[in-house]
Amino acid sequence: MPAGGAPGDGAPGDGAPGRHRRHGRADDGPPGTGEDALLEGLVPELPPGDWTELGPGDDAAVVRADDGRVVVTTDALVAERHFRPRTASPEDVGWKAAAQNLADVAAMGAVPTALVVALVVPERPPEPWAEGWTTSLARGLAAACRSLDGAQGCGVVGGDLTGGDQVVVSVTALGDLRGLAPVRRDGARPGDLVALAGVQGRSAAGLAVLERRARRAAAAWAGSRVESAADEGIADLVRAHRRPRPPCAAGPAAAEAGATAMLDVSDGLVRDAGRLARAGAVVLDLSSELLAPHHEAVLSVADLLGVEAWRLVLEGGEDHGLLATFPAEAVLPEGFELVGVVRAGTAPGVLVDGEPYGRTGGWDHFV
Amino acid sequence: MPAGGAPGDGAPGDGAPGRHRRHGRADDGPPGTGEDALLEGLVPELPPGDWTELGPGDDAAVVRADDGRVVVTTDALVAERHFRPRTASPEDVGWKAAAQNLADVAAMGAVPTALVVALVVPERPPEPWAEGWTTSLARGLAAACRSLDGAQGCGVVGGDLTGGDQVVVSVTALGDLRGLAPVRRDGARPGDLVALAGVQGRSAAGLAVLERRARRAAAAWAGSRVESAADEGIADLVRAHRRPRPPCAAGPAAAEAGATAMLDVSDGLVRDAGRLARAGAVVLDLSSELLAPHHEAVLSVADLLGVEAWRLVLEGGEDHGLLATFPAEAVLPEGFELVGVVRAGTAPGVLVDGEPYGRTGGWDHFV
Repeated sequence: MPAGGAPGDGAPGDGAPGRHRRHGRADDGPPGTGEDALLEGLVPELPPGDWTELGPGDDAAVVRADDGRVVVTTDALVAERHFRPRTASPEDVGWKAAAQNLADVAAMGAVPTALVVALVVPERPPEPWAEGWTTSLARGLAAACRSLDGAQGCGVVGGDLTGGDQVVVSVTALGDLRGLAPVRRDGARPGDLVALAGVQGRSAAGLAVLERRARRAAAAWAGSRVESAADEGIADLVRAHRRPRPPCAAGPAAAEAGATAMLDVSDGLVRDAGRLARAGAVVLDLSSELLAPHHEAVLSVADLLGVEAWRLVLEGGEDHGLLATFPAEAVLPEGFELVGVVRAGTAPGVLVDGEPYGRTGGWDHFV
Repeated sequence: MPAGGAPGDGAPGDGAPGRHRRHGRADDGPPGTGEDALLEGLVPELPPGDWTELGPGDDAAVVRADDGRVVVTTDALVAERHFRPRTASPEDVGWKAAAQNLADVAAMGAVPTALVVALVVPERPPEPWAEGWTTSLARGLAAACRSLDGAQGCGVVGGDLTGGDQVVVSVTALGDLRGLAPVRRDGARPGDLVALAGVQGRSAAGLAVLERRARRAAAAWAGSRVESAADEGIADLVRAHRRPRPPCAAGPAAAEAGATAMLDVSDGLVRDAGRLARAGAVVLDLSSELLAPHHEAVLSVADLLGVEAWRLVLEGGEDHGLLATFPAEAVLPEGFELVGVVRAGTAPGVLVDGEPYGRTGGWDHFV
């Protein structure tokens, strides 16, 4: 290349790294093309929110934080890691990205007030999504905020849209503690009650259904016991995977009721209970009898699929329920059901019916 | 596959989508492996911050919002779109991701209080980055917060670490308005002064140097006019590209001085000035005489590279200076220099020395 500095020679604007657009900056460039068009479709879908003082369109948004503190959490969903475009619609992915962040806010005892979203958009939609999927994804974000109990006032106040090889949806959620202390993970004390709000095992059951279908479709297998037995129950489980419903209102209710510790159950009940146990240096003893309704809810599908229903309940992730501990004398707030007790112990961990839970031995006789 | 429910048969934990880890959740799994090891290296690098009430390790962080409102903005950097691992170190990328979000907060007139980061980490580091790059990136985030004037109290309070094909760094920044109204984009009025804080054109000049070097290296071209003329000035410009220094303290100072409008100059001076102009339905008339120091600063390198110095100043992006308008009687706060005036006009837009600026015609005689 001659040293003459032809156009495109490293000067700005020649496609070198650096171009960037934010929601609501659709204020130049020909309309109907590229990111401007995406923004035009997307921004009107976003719920304004009850706490929003300034929404999309400026360098940053402004959100009320009446309490004088703000809860903040961030979580990204990556295509083929956290969702598969073949089995999840863009609406589903938007919903899920919102829901898991709303659950993290609720798990501190806070009311969700606002979301911002950074979206990586490949040049072509991932199969089988269609052009315009970013608008659909925004609709999913909005639907989660509007539909989840306790999240109705949460706005989507801003974001960032950028190119990349793979769909990534990074959501940050803010929340308000309403004058209460945040409910941390490390406050469980011996004698406390262990309680769960929300469902457990259904998302994993729904995922198992989807994965089975995908494998059968790939093998061009025409019939399916699952398909032939398809009923409302199975559809419910698939929906529970695609659109988890964290009980957002239960988080602030737990804080008011004096919860000593709480977290969002995203990685499985035993695994997340183990986090509470280790953070508080206690033992959480879960009761299979108290968890039986969750077992019932996935049993018939588990049988059809040939997976263990108890594994779904105890190890299944992504339901985004809230696991909390309460003083023994507390009245459990609406949405929570007793599932166990906190015990003292030299080795922090999780028991099921008084026995250690693990893949090898202990209570884990069903693996 | 038999319908017997073998391990890996769609049950949770078999590598299906859904696994997720957050900063500070390095509380299970064997130490020294995978994401736990990444977290162990990364979290200690993060600055705790002056506003932080609860940092990484729980479902969410808690940050003071003394003002009763919180400013929030999000921006993602994608490998090969916003940076090239061959010319930017992980520290550079962390710095840049922090800096551009801090600039957006400052552009509202707010003091940055906290960052959260969602990081997509491919299985293998992008060439030529080494294992452990996530810790280096965290160091870059921390260095920006500690080094940028006006951002010193900003903590990195949480995040999310997940797998993916391509490095993506999504940062969300929070800020505090200290009782002042946010400085929006739409407040410029005829007669206002136009002022700029920070540098302009240097990042684009540094990028041009790097791109030239990369092409020459690719062509196995041994000598280089740029290399042979390498001096401190060139190194400074490359540094300005790799580690932009938004004048974060100037944002709140502008709000106190009564700025009528402000934005972060991320996409080039004329382009971003055009946004202020359209938002306020006014004309911004920039003065080449007043901008001459910026022109001087890039002139020698522009000449060496054969690019137009004025294009760097007027079109170069990513310096993350602050462009603001002030009432005519205002005393410009420290850090701001007068660069033009606001005029009334039927067609909102940008003039340079009273002439329309554009690629074809007008003031743009040098293209």
